Amino acid sequence: MQFDPHSSHIDIPVKIIGRVRSPYGEATGTPIQSVYANSAEGQIIVNDGFADALDDVEGFERLWLIYWMDRVTTSKLRVVPYRDNQERGLFATRSPCRPNPIGMSVVRLLRREGNVLQVADLDILDDTPLLDIKPYVPEFDAHPTSKAGWFDACGVNRTVADGRFHEAFDPKRGKVAK
Amino acid sequence: MQFDPHSSHIDIPVKIIGRVRSPYGEATGTPIQSVYANSAEGQIIVNDGFADALDDVEGFERLWLIYWMDRVTTSKLRVVPYRDNQERGLFATRSPCRPNPIGMSVVRLLRREGNVLQVADLDILDDTPLLDIKPYVPEFDAHPTSKAGWFDACGVNRTVADGRFHEAFDPKRGKVAK
Repeated sequence: MQFDPHSSHIDIPVKIIGRVRSPYGEATGTPIQSVYANSAEGQIIVNDGFADALDDVEGFERLWLIYWMDRVTTSKLRVVPYRDNQERGLFATRSPCRPNPIGMSVVRLLRREGNVLQVADLDILDDTPLLDIKPYVPEFDAHPTSKAGWFDACGVNRTVADGRFHEAFDPKRGKVAK
Repeated sequence: MQFDPHSSHIDIPVKIIGRVRSPYGEATGTPIQSVYANSAEGQIIVNDGFADALDDVEGFERLWLIYWMDRVTTSKLRVVPYRDNQERGLFATRSPCRPNPIGMSVVRLLRREGNVLQVADLDILDDTPLLDIKPYVPEFDAHPTSKAGWFDACGVNRTVADGRFHEAFDPKRGKVAK
């Protein structure tokens, strides 16, 4: 695969390695992060061809899921994030309407049965295409005292999505127009 | 964009949002994780069109970089990870030879100058295409006591890559054939 350094678009033949099965059929009402998911359970169905790559995950308490947020249809440079009341630069937020709508979530692994992972703390829409699974390794991933800018100062305790990143969202009514 | 649930491949027009500038021109000798990078510095050059999306990142001590490991040419189901001496399922490792070679690294933000981020703790090859930047938020991302399977028990303290995921790697000599 060649990358043209002067090109800003590349067509990568991304593989769907599996799908997420979750209780959430639409963005509105879905937890905005896995830590706010109240232990919501679901399954990760890994395509049969990749099942052997799941060996040894059982010992990990948490896994990273990397997925393509396929219901995101817009990309913005500035957004009002769920946990704030003012606009911020998109890359200083975890909002879904990104140039590449790639999501990453830490979920708790409850058990593995062949190509199926039963997981908790899901904040992902049902049927979302999965791109990667990585083990959560505290030595690499946990920086508990890292300063977090506007997030540390925020006074908004919203934990579920209200549809603001949906094209049909009506900010006055605070919900998606039907 | 439509996803065929019966298809395992999707062609996503992934956008390169920028490039990584790092001291590492080849995998061999590159830190295997940002925590082993000895503060190695480099730059994130964000394409001009996305510069405004960097507003407000200055308050964050660490950022997630999501990138496409464009020099990875193979994918395996089982690998001997850098920090172990025996084969493990790929999804229980952080090895680069994944079905989708998407990397994620936590780096420390030193300063922002327009569309350029000066960062430390880099473990990424020079000129790597960047797909996303997300703020590191301890409340979402830090799980310092999470159990980490084989990694917790490993006795291998390797911190830099030896080329084992390169096609021309010679395991007897422990290096890439020239």
